[in-house]
Formats: sequence, structure tokens, C-alpha cells
Amino acid sequence: MSKIALVGIGKIAVDQHVPAIAGAPEWELAATVSRRGTVEGVEAWTGIDEMLAARPDIGAVSLALPPVPRFAYAEAALRAGRHVMLEKPPGATLAECHVLAALAAKMGVTLFASWHSREAAMVAPAKAWLADRQVTGAHITWREDVRHWHPGQDWVFEPGGMGVLDPGINALSILTEILPAPVHLQSALLEVPANRQAPIAADLAFSGGVTAEFNWLQTGPQTWDIQVHCGDDRLTLREGGARMEINGHDHDEAVVGPTGEYPRLYERFARLVAAGESDVDLAPLVHVADAMMLGARKNVEAFEF
Amino acid sequence: MSKIALVGIGKIAVDQHVPAIAGAPEWELAATVSRRGTVEGVEAWTGIDEMLAARPDIGAVSLALPPVPRFAYAEAALRAGRHVMLEKPPGATLAECHVLAALAAKMGVTLFASWHSREAAMVAPAKAWLADRQVTGAHITWREDVRHWHPGQDWVFEPGGMGVLDPGINALSILTEILPAPVHLQSALLEVPANRQAPIAADLAFSGGVTAEFNWLQTGPQTWDIQVHCGDDRLTLREGGARMEINGHDHDEAVVGPTGEYPRLYERFARLVAAGESDVDLAPLVHVADAMMLGARKNVEAFEF
Repeated sequence: MSKIALVGIGKIAVDQHVPAIAGAPEWELAATVSRRGTVEGVEAWTGIDEMLAARPDIGAVSLALPPVPRFAYAEAALRAGRHVMLEKPPGATLAECHVLAALAAKMGVTLFASWHSREAAMVAPAKAWLADRQVTGAHITWREDVRHWHPGQDWVFEPGGMGVLDPGINALSILTEILPAPVHLQSALLEVPANRQAPIAADLAFSGGVTAEFNWLQTGPQTWDIQVHCGDDRLTLREGGARMEINGHDHDEAVVGPTGEYPRLYERFARLVAAGESDVDLAPLVHVADAMMLGARKNVEAFEF
Repeated sequence: MSKIALVGIGKIAVDQHVPAIAGAPEWELAATVSRRGTVEGVEAWTGIDEMLAARPDIGAVSLALPPVPRFAYAEAALRAGRHVMLEKPPGATLAECHVLAALAAKMGVTLFASWHSREAAMVAPAKAWLADRQVTGAHITWREDVRHWHPGQDWVFEPGGMGVLDPGINALSILTEILPAPVHLQSALLEVPANRQAPIAADLAFSGGVTAEFNWLQTGPQTWDIQVHCGDDRLTLREGGARMEINGHDHDEAVVGPTGEYPRLYERFARLVAAGESDVDLAPLVHVADAMMLGARKNVEAFEF
């Protein structure tokens, strides 16, 4: 087992990272770094520099904090020669991701920009099914309730928080993984609450007849669907990629490796470290940056949690 | 001389591209493509597909139209096996630039994403002077009058027009060329007129003490300065890179090659074609996309031309 430190003990760390590491045969959670959060039974630090200096035996660091503060931690860990795994999105800017990738290459360590939605069970089967087909269009419907998923987290609407494009980037991480050829944004409409900086709803139109509809105000059942058309054939990913339908019929397939998105991420991180490789695919973040650059903004009703 | 077609006969084409091609020993302007504009004595087309089909002897295409409509023309020219030069910015999105770069590689032709400000006389000397120095900070001051430079061009404030980041990207193209190590955006303030989509002023703060101030409301003398600090030493580029000062004293240096930004671009394009190479450096556009993604927006007074 390799020792790993987890940085940023907030909701996503507690819900996903801690149990995934606990269940991973490759990893031992040897330390945490967080201003306030701790994990029972695990050595806790508040500063990353102190942890890196005191624990040279910890060769890998996983960063679960929000993108804006994350860069400094990633840079410190890479400079200290540790392998680094980044939560999604890999940065608040594209340029900082390029800087981190160059630094990892220079230090000879692994940088893994993780996209947990790509590890959903049916993403790999969907990619395989689409590989030799001609895609004639696609539609993403990603509708969830921000009050449920980010209760009181004002930072999601602040600059760098990305608003509804934060869950939307999960859909885009699947889309960019399964499509056999890349698409590019042609237009976008961003609906921004009058009292906020980031959009609460967005409509995106890409080349090749690919469209996306993101909404953060859906109460009741949540929708995370991607439908891809190949002429008369239709592939549908539902529940964020957990289920797949071909022409409306459920498609089941044995999945290789651990079950669950985060357990699969940590297995993948271990494989990358073992192979001496990095994986920094910025395509989903490029689409978000493009949407912010090219999108038309429309003011909508103020939003309070 | 190699035959070249110029697409998009608007202000920038008439002011810069046509005289630069006319003065270039490597190029002959063999055709234009434009909905309305023409160049006296040059074969004029309104559709690019027709020109490409009728003139297989024209091996290169230069695209001087605005970024939003430009992609389709670039794609058509590359698919037809022609070398392509793009005005700045190279696209309305980063993803479309990646698509074009991949297409150029696949077709075995040259793609040149041009940045005319990098050809200003003192940019290469500034880069050489900074190459082995430690940069401790830098400040860009880019203040010009949008009514003078873009009279009545409402598209500069529309989605994809980038607003003041369109001249600002010229400064960023110089900055990314001369700095010995890359920087990344840490925060930005974008001032957006109440009746427009794109900013009319912007303040950017990068890592490494690098800041930028863009403003589009400066009447009277225009300012295009970049000051770089290396400890106690100070390099200043003035007039968009036409002049350089070291510690406040004018620095003069013989410049190799043709005089003028656009003549130098066309010489560079010819060299790239001859060498079978592409040059698609997206770093300036990455910074603009990052500013649009990370920047805080503030509504300011409505703007009319």
C-alpha cells in the first residue's frame, strides 16, 4: 500500500474520497490537511508545507478543495516531488493547469486531473459503442437542485465557482470522453441571477448538432441524461452514466474494476503512478472557458439559498 | 512568389493585410473573398468554396474576418489542403483552435495563428534581454479609444467580440512572448457597460506580481506600455512594443527582416510554409478565456458609439 494525504476535508472529501481511499487496496490514508476538517484516526495537519516536510514517506497527495485555493497546494506538493490527484475541475484557470502539468513533467511525478463522472459504469461501454459510428447529434440534459447539492455554498456562484457549469462540466467530461471526434462551442446563453456572478442555467450549442441544457433549479427527481444520435440509432446515458439504453432498451454490461466513481478514480491514480504517467485532459474545462468567453449573459431573478 | 487569397475585406484587411502582401516578395495577392469588399485589380469572390474549387493554384489563404464567422472559412480552406493564416484572436473559442490545429496536422499543411503585436520591433530584443533574468513583477497599461479604433463596430461588444480584451490580447501576446516563465491569472475585474455583453475596462492580476489594466475609453494620447521589473532593473516597452527603455533610457537595436508588424507576419507565414511547420500558440487566448471564466463582473455606465 502507498501512503496518500488528502487535502481539503469538506463535504466531497467526507462523502467520496475518504471511503474510496479506505476501500482501495493500493492506498493508505496517512494524513489529512485541512483548516478545520479532520478524519477520525488519521494524522491531521493544517498546513501543507508542514505535512510535506514532516512526512517524506507520503508519496502522493489528493486535493479535494475548491479550484480557486487549490493551485497553491498542488504546486507545493509537486515541487516537493509528490504525485498529485486533482478534484474536478482541475483549476480555476486553464493557464494554471498548464503550469501544473509542466511542473509535474519537470519533477518526474504523476499529475492526474480527475473527472469522476468519466468513471460512471456505462461511460466506457458508451465510448466503445460510439467508436466506429457516425454521430449525427447529441443532447445533454443536466438538471439538479443546487440547494440540495451545495447547501449554503455561496462560493459556487462567485467568480471561479462556475455556477451551473460546475455540475455541467461533469456532463462535458462524459461527452468529451465518449464522442469519437471533438466538437466546439458555437453559441451559449448563460442565465445569471441578478445578485450573483455565475450562471444558474445555461444552454450550449456545439458543432455537429450537439446541444446541452444545464439547470440548477430542478426540485424533485434530478436529471443527468446524455442522448447521442447516430442516424436512426440512439444511445442514452442516464443517471450520470450509471445506466445506458440503446434505442430505448436497457443495455447491461459487466464492468471491469471496482464499483463506484471515486474507487475507480483512486485505482486509476495508482495505475498512473505505477506507469510513471500523467493524465491531464483539459477538454471539459476548455468548453466551460469557451462558454464563459462566447456566451451571452441574461440577468434572471435573484437567487438565495 | 506564392499565390495567396485574402478573406474578409474590412478595415484591418485594407489598412494592414493588403499593403503587407503587396510589399512582400514571397506573396502575390491572387484573389479576395468577401461579401462586399474588393481590392482593385484583384479577382474577387463572394464564397470561399467557389474560390477554393476554381483556383487550385492558390496554395495559401489568409483570414482577416472577425473570429466568430472565421472558423467555417478556416475549416474549408484546410480541408481543401491550403495553408492558413489566422488574424488574432485565432478563434472565438479555444476548442475550435484545437480542431483547426488537428485538421492542419492531418492535412499536412501549415496553420499560423498570428499575433501581430509580437512582431513589433522591440519585442524580440525585450525577450532576449529578459531571457536570463529573474522577473519580479510586471505591469501592462493598455488604454485606447474604442470610438477611434472600432467606429460603430457593435460586434466588438457582442458575445465573442471580447470587448476591451480584444486590444488587451495584443498586450498579452507580447507578455507571453517575452516572459521567461509562464504566469496564470489569479483574479480579474471586468467592467461591462449596462447595455453591452463584453467589458469596456478590465483589471487582471496574474501570478508573479504581473498585473494588467485595459481601458477602452482613453481619448487623446493612447497608451500601450508594458513595464517589467527584474529586481532593481526595469524594462519598458512603449507604443505597443515599437520602443524600448532599459531603466528609463531609450534602447535602440537593429531589427532583422522587414519593418512593420504585418509585413513581418507575412514573411513569417512564408517561412512556416517553406519549413512545413505550424505555429498555433494559444497562450494569449487562454488568458482571455481565463479572465472571462474567473473574472468578477461589474456593471458600469451604458456605452454608445
